[in-house]
Amino acid sequence: MGPGEAPTIDDVRAAAQRIAPYVHRTPVLTCTALDAMCGGELFFKCECFQKVGAFKARGATNAVFSLSDAEAVRGVATHSSGNHAAALAYAARCRGTTAYVAMPSNAPEVKKRAVAGYGAEIVECEPTLEAREATLRAIVERTGAVFVPPYNDHRVIAGQGTAALELLDEVTDLDAVIAPVGGGGLLGGTAITVASLSPETLVFGAEPQQADDAYRSFHAGRIMPATNPTTIADGLRTSLGTLTFPIIRRHVRDIITVSEDAIVDAMRHIWQRMKVLVEPSAAVPVAVLLEKRDQVPGRRIGIILSGGNADLDHLPW
Amino acid sequence: MGPGEAPTIDDVRAAAQRIAPYVHRTPVLTCTALDAMCGGELFFKCECFQKVGAFKARGATNAVFSLSDAEAVRGVATHSSGNHAAALAYAARCRGTTAYVAMPSNAPEVKKRAVAGYGAEIVECEPTLEAREATLRAIVERTGAVFVPPYNDHRVIAGQGTAALELLDEVTDLDAVIAPVGGGGLLGGTAITVASLSPETLVFGAEPQQADDAYRSFHAGRIMPATNPTTIADGLRTSLGTLTFPIIRRHVRDIITVSEDAIVDAMRHIWQRMKVLVEPSAAVPVAVLLEKRDQVPGRRIGIILSGGNADLDHLPW
Repeated sequence: MGPGEAPTIDDVRAAAQRIAPYVHRTPVLTCTALDAMCGGELFFKCECFQKVGAFKARGATNAVFSLSDAEAVRGVATHSSGNHAAALAYAARCRGTTAYVAMPSNAPEVKKRAVAGYGAEIVECEPTLEAREATLRAIVERTGAVFVPPYNDHRVIAGQGTAALELLDEVTDLDAVIAPVGGGGLLGGTAITVASLSPETLVFGAEPQQADDAYRSFHAGRIMPATNPTTIADGLRTSLGTLTFPIIRRHVRDIITVSEDAIVDAMRHIWQRMKVLVEPSAAVPVAVLLEKRDQVPGRRIGIILSGGNADLDHLPW
Repeated sequence: MGPGEAPTIDDVRAAAQRIAPYVHRTPVLTCTALDAMCGGELFFKCECFQKVGAFKARGATNAVFSLSDAEAVRGVATHSSGNHAAALAYAARCRGTTAYVAMPSNAPEVKKRAVAGYGAEIVECEPTLEAREATLRAIVERTGAVFVPPYNDHRVIAGQGTAALELLDEVTDLDAVIAPVGGGGLLGGTAITVASLSPETLVFGAEPQQADDAYRSFHAGRIMPATNPTTIADGLRTSLGTLTFPIIRRHVRDIITVSEDAIVDAMRHIWQRMKVLVEPSAAVPVAVLLEKRDQVPGRRIGIILSGGNADLDHLPW
């Protein structure tokens, strides 16, 4: 792809080859009990078993290994307190360079430790978006590190698409694929891949009602950022970006929103029946099937279980 | 095998073919974080993702599908309140026959529902071993059903060995394989398989100190049943049987016991780092590596994660 063009299936394939030594090929699991509950045949792509516990390892690794040696040596940087920061730290360590992470001073200790555990250099800042962006700019000016955004980046989007590439390699004739949508990197990469390899398969984004910016943006035809989202699915509180939005508009059939109760129910069913530990964000596509089954046509449905970094000391039931 | 002879690798292979349509080929996962904690390269055979959430589906299915049509039509029976009852119910349903389960009246509602959910006929009895055995005898006399024991049965042992068969099919050059040991069906089947296919690989049984009948029996050279075992690993409170004991004596290098604290730690690490929901019994082999690493030589270690039927409302941390 050129720098301004959206990724194509060729970019997703190139990403898959580039990241293969550093990420897991995660299993696709099935579960008769959840099939019965949801009325269909579900195929779960288990990105909770991915490096750093989430699909984010794919996009970050693709971005970091797309850099020239001259770029990579100066390091990479981001502002995030979530899975992307851990993923970027992991990818930088694989490349033998440094990740700088601007992180709010009130970020949970456990998240700081995880990111530091992968060898990143954490720069603390005030807990506002402005402070995070200013701190990131200062890091980039001081070190020459390359900013790797969490989703609004074509290399990241192409990397996230590799999960769907593996899913379609194992499972054919899917009627639909559902991925959660926050910033849209995973949904965008999934949509590009499915649209190219299995154009009959519909792609849906699953979103919490309490963070429904993608739903509103999709239907308004322009980006309408979230204001103060409060969902338990903390990975989905971000808003669509300028690069992810047009991809989603083009290749996604619809965004379907669900209640908080449905998310917690879905999360518990996945733990209980599949024995797979997913974080709330990852349960949102299953919540769609529990709460709004009629909006997803067909029986054979692929689900991206996006991550497993749940807090074992604070379960939502 | 003849009725009195211990199963061979041919019996395990025949079992694998017999049960293939009814059980999952479960994935083998790896986890860098647990490798670092345990000092080695660990390969986890994830039987928690098996049908009914435990390896028990393998042995029960092999036993039920080994029956002649004339035997199968009268049904199968067992006394158990654990995973074997659910597994037998599942296998009977696959064969199109009835499972009868003698179950103590004080068995948890959730276990009764699970077994009933697979279509078994539950016969309640007093919560003593005598009452369970008498109830089972009465069922067998009334119906002509075939008793399928939870572990002391060569068809069951051969079935349990198919998990190790799949593990060795995917991973070579293992220095050791560790399986939990309760009644010895899983450990016995694992040992037969590993001894035949990879004789350089040592097999260890992992057992709670608070249910250490296998350890004592192994070292005494005769079966010494558990008296009032109290471990959190409820699947391992049973004692070795007359058929499993000689197999284990012959093919297992040692039984290693661990503390309750180590079991809970191991369980939490597996949930937290691998995102795999295991029950306490399944964590016991990892507890061995956390607490008694020096007793297991070598670096490449296979682990059978035996099951995932944990109680989400009563976590042990």
